[in-house]
Amino acid sequence: MRLLKDKIKTDGIVLNENVLKVDSFINHQMDPKLMKEIGKEFARLFKEEEITKVLTIESSGIAPAIMTGLEFDVPVIFARKRKSLTLTSDVYTAKVYSFTKQETNEITVSHKYIEEGDNVLIVDDFLANGQAAIGLAKMVEQAGANVSGIGILIEKSFQPGAEEIRKQGYRLESLARVKSLAGGKVQFVETKETVYQ
Amino acid sequence: MRLLKDKIKTDGIVLNENVLKVDSFINHQMDPKLMKEIGKEFARLFKEEEITKVLTIESSGIAPAIMTGLEFDVPVIFARKRKSLTLTSDVYTAKVYSFTKQETNEITVSHKYIEEGDNVLIVDDFLANGQAAIGLAKMVEQAGANVSGIGILIEKSFQPGAEEIRKQGYRLESLARVKSLAGGKVQFVETKETVYQ
Repeated sequence: MRLLKDKIKTDGIVLNENVLKVDSFINHQMDPKLMKEIGKEFARLFKEEEITKVLTIESSGIAPAIMTGLEFDVPVIFARKRKSLTLTSDVYTAKVYSFTKQETNEITVSHKYIEEGDNVLIVDDFLANGQAAIGLAKMVEQAGANVSGIGILIEKSFQPGAEEIRKQGYRLESLARVKSLAGGKVQFVETKETVYQ
Repeated sequence: MRLLKDKIKTDGIVLNENVLKVDSFINHQMDPKLMKEIGKEFARLFKEEEITKVLTIESSGIAPAIMTGLEFDVPVIFARKRKSLTLTSDVYTAKVYSFTKQETNEITVSHKYIEEGDNVLIVDDFLANGQAAIGLAKMVEQAGANVSGIGILIEKSFQPGAEEIRKQGYRLESLARVKSLAGGKVQFVETKETVYQ
């Protein structure tokens, strides 16, 4: 997605060869118009999938997910994160290890909001090791629902998440695919606008 | 706001005389069209204020805030919550005690995103004891910016937050004002649609 890539080039900050900081327009300060365009783009990419729910995870996934849900006119659910502790009976759970924070969170979604037969689009801001996206997908499957696709704003293609997700058979669409952050410079995977499955 | 009050009546669940559960349309599953209408309503209510930033707090404030920011065409910032621990030098902080969770969180906003002269609209889902809203307001003032108003989806008018906020001189607009949850029934404050200051 051209608009997102341009924004990453102008406003993204490369902290080191693994970390791209986008807190001026995605995950602390957010650009509402960009989020709206991202929602439209996911709606275009997944328009054949008869999406019935959008699922994301707090907090940075919420803005793009709500805009996507608005385009599809379907409810949006955000999974809650918490340190792994109590198990509650009426929630789906998945354990998600964060490499950045070096801690395991348990993510949860209430049974009430994902039902058998739902076609769920998973949306998140970053894809690195794929732990969050795969955890969300597993919860959808626990519910007997269908993972119609995974929509990511920024894929770090040099980390293993994207490959792992595709290997597991999920449809993945990333709006910006970062090949490398070496030398303080963002390099994107060359594509004719993320058309792969 | 009629639409929100109707939704509370049909889909809100009164757990006890203090707790109204709205996780089917606000704080777990979200209704994107309702969020869009809420954004429009805040834009209407605060249209004279020359808003330059919208500020909220993760996670449930993000959806209504991003829709409000879209209407005003201004950036939206969400404050991060974390257990009180380290102080970082480049963030504004405020301590916020949660009566529900019985813990103190430190909320933070990067210095970069609120500047002197900004007219900031604070948006949040619930107002009960007012700790979050007042914490956000204090951070705005630390930055030398102006708190143009506080926009709340659901005010529990029988708890002290609303009165405290008005006493401190902030303009407060709550889209639904709940007078009582006694007897398992939601009763709203009678107003001609939240016109007070």
